[in-house]
Amino acid sequence: MSLKRKIIIIGGSAAGPKAAAKARRIDNDADVVIIQKEADLSMASCGYPYYVGGCFNDRNALLATGTGVVRNPLFYLNAKDIEAKVNTEVTAVDRKNHTVSFKNTLSGEQGTMNYDKLIIATGALSRLPPVPGTNLSGITTLQSMKDADFLRRVRDEGKIKKAVVVGGGLIGIETCEALQLAGIEITVIELLPQLLTFLDWELAKLIENHVRSKGANVITENGIAAFLGEEGKLSAVKLQNGTELPCELAVVAIGVIPNVALARQAGLKIGELGGIDVNEYMQTSDPDIYAAGDCVETVNRITGKKVLAPYGDLANLEGRVAGENAASENCVKFPGTIQTGICKVFDYAAGATGLSEATAKKFGFADIVSVINASPDKPGFMQGKLLITKMVADRKTGRVLGAQCIGPGTVAKQIAQWAMAIQGKLTVEDITNSDLPYAPPFSLAIDHFIATAHIMQNKIKGRLKGITSREVWQKVQSGEKPFLIDVRGPEEFEEMRLGIGETLIPLGALRKRLPELPADKNKEIICYCKISLRGYEAALALEGNGWKNVKVMEGGIMAWPYPREK
Amino acid sequence: MSLKRKIIIIGGSAAGPKAAAKARRIDNDADVVIIQKEADLSMASCGYPYYVGGCFNDRNALLATGTGVVRNPLFYLNAKDIEAKVNTEVTAVDRKNHTVSFKNTLSGEQGTMNYDKLIIATGALSRLPPVPGTNLSGITTLQSMKDADFLRRVRDEGKIKKAVVVGGGLIGIETCEALQLAGIEITVIELLPQLLTFLDWELAKLIENHVRSKGANVITENGIAAFLGEEGKLSAVKLQNGTELPCELAVVAIGVIPNVALARQAGLKIGELGGIDVNEYMQTSDPDIYAAGDCVETVNRITGKKVLAPYGDLANLEGRVAGENAASENCVKFPGTIQTGICKVFDYAAGATGLSEATAKKFGFADIVSVINASPDKPGFMQGKLLITKMVADRKTGRVLGAQCIGPGTVAKQIAQWAMAIQGKLTVEDITNSDLPYAPPFSLAIDHFIATAHIMQNKIKGRLKGITSREVWQKVQSGEKPFLIDVRGPEEFEEMRLGIGETLIPLGALRKRLPELPADKNKEIICYCKISLRGYEAALALEGNGWKNVKVMEGGIMAWPYPREK
Repeated sequence: MSLKRKIIIIGGSAAGPKAAAKARRIDNDADVVIIQKEADLSMASCGYPYYVGGCFNDRNALLATGTGVVRNPLFYLNAKDIEAKVNTEVTAVDRKNHTVSFKNTLSGEQGTMNYDKLIIATGALSRLPPVPGTNLSGITTLQSMKDADFLRRVRDEGKIKKAVVVGGGLIGIETCEALQLAGIEITVIELLPQLLTFLDWELAKLIENHVRSKGANVITENGIAAFLGEEGKLSAVKLQNGTELPCELAVVAIGVIPNVALARQAGLKIGELGGIDVNEYMQTSDPDIYAAGDCVETVNRITGKKVLAPYGDLANLEGRVAGENAASENCVKFPGTIQTGICKVFDYAAGATGLSEATAKKFGFADIVSVINASPDKPGFMQGKLLITKMVADRKTGRVLGAQCIGPGTVAKQIAQWAMAIQGKLTVEDITNSDLPYAPPFSLAIDHFIATAHIMQNKIKGRLKGITSREVWQKVQSGEKPFLIDVRGPEEFEEMRLGIGETLIPLGALRKRLPELPADKNKEIICYCKISLRGYEAALALEGNGWKNVKVMEGGIMAWPYPREK
Repeated sequence: MSLKRKIIIIGGSAAGPKAAAKARRIDNDADVVIIQKEADLSMASCGYPYYVGGCFNDRNALLATGTGVVRNPLFYLNAKDIEAKVNTEVTAVDRKNHTVSFKNTLSGEQGTMNYDKLIIATGALSRLPPVPGTNLSGITTLQSMKDADFLRRVRDEGKIKKAVVVGGGLIGIETCEALQLAGIEITVIELLPQLLTFLDWELAKLIENHVRSKGANVITENGIAAFLGEEGKLSAVKLQNGTELPCELAVVAIGVIPNVALARQAGLKIGELGGIDVNEYMQTSDPDIYAAGDCVETVNRITGKKVLAPYGDLANLEGRVAGENAASENCVKFPGTIQTGICKVFDYAAGATGLSEATAKKFGFADIVSVINASPDKPGFMQGKLLITKMVADRKTGRVLGAQCIGPGTVAKQIAQWAMAIQGKLTVEDITNSDLPYAPPFSLAIDHFIATAHIMQNKIKGRLKGITSREVWQKVQSGEKPFLIDVRGPEEFEEMRLGIGETLIPLGALRKRLPELPADKNKEIICYCKISLRGYEAALALEGNGWKNVKVMEGGIMAWPYPREK
């Protein structure tokens, strides 16, 4: 070891520059070098869809500091005393001799460099479908600055009329919105039965309806069979069911895989999920090599299981931990993720944190309970907007396992609250009496988040017998005839209604109109209203009057994802 | 006890109706009666300033459910099977005989009623200054529907030109904004040295500057001496320093006191702070009487001390607990408050949760550490807006004690995150790796909240030596000459600068311009930039080059509350 510690960081997108900057701050004397394959550094890659969609026009905004300085090698040198070699690919890591070999991708020039500590931040690669035609022009991903430049050009030129987005995850949905805003006719194709798998089906279906309402087409449960072309150019996408969708552009967004080629070549341990294996210090199987960002496996803090969590915020936090540990001794730990994510969907947002019902079941939580709540984020007189939340908890301990939220309301705030609640290991009981910042411009007196916990508490205590819209729909479809009561007012009923055989009995009239209800006190009765509150009060009134099988349809009409009569 | 439990609730604003509704849901058979002195029920009293300010015009919106149904006695009867007696004042509680006596305030009719369980939710009364002239016309509070109606009429008539708001707390500031928006020239008078005492001085001063920038006048450290009038009408307000402010309207908002007359008359235990004493079940010293809302004392969950916390959200949560316990057995607990609050201030918001630095010191936390962070809520390319946060932690345990946040950015979300972190008893370390919902439309990759914890961590570890703007200002005022470095770029310096004797050395040029720095390596050097990050990097670079007394001015220029050169 020389007197000066030499720290080399491979990768210049998110985790790499963060690790480099942190290492520099910890050790002012160290030599800190970033080796970056691309031409750009520290790209705000999560911002690509908004550049493509025209939210802003200055490409440099994706590469600049808050005060508008582009983070190029000169910036890193002058402001941070970090050497950044761009257009430079690391070709090999020699762990025995503590060297990396690299090659300039423009000049072909080669070299080697010693390291005391190495940080690998090689990110992830876009997954491509194993189908014919992927080499046609007009097919892209949205993973690099180059991709963003290409799609922005598509927008600016305005020539392309039809495009297909392959994949209905976060990036797929963001890309769909971006291209739709560019005036392109979009179809989103998803192999699974739903978009955005961080949501459970009911909420994903509402998002699908919203995407459609904006004019984009959505096809689920149908994968891509081939890209079809003429003269080397994409002309259509063929689906597994045979459908052909004419299009001049296809954006593939079916997920990413950790880019571990270099780590593998260096003999570092790769985890079962295909990411670099790291400990809580972000240290690989070689104590002198750290790794951070999309190329690693991290730990789900709820299940304790390893996961891939390729999110920009985690990359930064992991990079910070790797940088500090590489520059000193192992002294800070990264605790893992609860897989919090969010996505803008036109004028809605969709977010999730912790486990969905589906994931919780998959991970063996045996006795989970979930609930759906629909209510506005603020009072009506402050133009409150709808939020629909699904909360998942462990029945026995009451521990919150996860929450999902969608709608035009303040979804990010809701998810942030749930995320902090889960990180504090709070229970349903704890949340029922949360002390949150209340004033009418910001929330309801009982915030949507707290109200969701209230409903959950009522369900766990056996007071609220919930039924999902999906179960109701299946009953109706299969010809079962539960007695369905819509307890809203006549005007609301005139304006919007399900039309699935329901009887309108406004809550205020219910106690007088009990004779209209089934004489059989064991008959299944399902109550609902616009959201869920009046439906719940109706159910309690019926139970108080002797009916024994009364349920409340969770989330009411606002969370109904199926066709309505009006 | 009759077969049917009889539950009487005194008070029909927030806690009362909530308690009644919850009691009804728990016990479908009980007789539930609300006795309300006012004509209205379940008023959204926190919405008054927005009605007065013209955010909306339909008075009924303050009294209606989310679907527009006014919550009058008929609504309570039909929808909830609750009897609500309005315009009815309870004149006495006879605990021995379990009866309340009441009188109709319009007809004078009197009566008594038996109770099995009683819930007192009599709210609070506006404090009035003990000065001459309070009976002049043109002096009001903003505490009742009647007050709101009066001030809304003032707005609609447009005759009044000048008004004084006495008190610079939450309600005072909200009222100031409402009347300013109505085109009235406003002066806010505050006896203390700052507005909004849930903030520490530095942040309060920034809010004061913002209020002034909107055209309202603010006078601090000066109380009211008298209301002056002509022919029974207010004509001016006289201050303690002799100043007379001509005005036709004065709104008094110097706080509230628990309305405990009835509880006191009934012999219930009153706490040291003047509120009804209740246990964790919201039960008074009489096991058959519960109390909730602004009339009670609750517990601060951080200090364990009793506090008055007259907030609308807590009133609802306390009412819910009181209602459930009164309708069954004591089975749910109210854990107390962390005194979370928020307030809209024109296009800023100001919020706080937990303890301020001042409060923490007052409550004997000996070794606290605080930090100020200024940064945008979102990336620049997504039109990020400024947030300024002050965080307070216990140095030894790292436990977060409190946070305050102001600015045009998403303050409510920030405060909600801090509130949940405090309720989860999280430490600085925990927060540094929070997993929050990140996408560019919603936050920075490293959210302002997390970045604040990063700065705090650096400060606790001794890497960042912070100095507040107040300390810098005092040094400059007293003629001390620390070496001040502004490390921003020349264009930024041209646009805005402090002008307190600083030298401009952009961070990128610092390492080359070290010879310009004081030769004395023990000389005090203070670095700053627009926010704090470049200032911190500069300080580290200087320390790395041997300077031993280098500080960073926290929050940078954005958190500077004093006059600037430009």
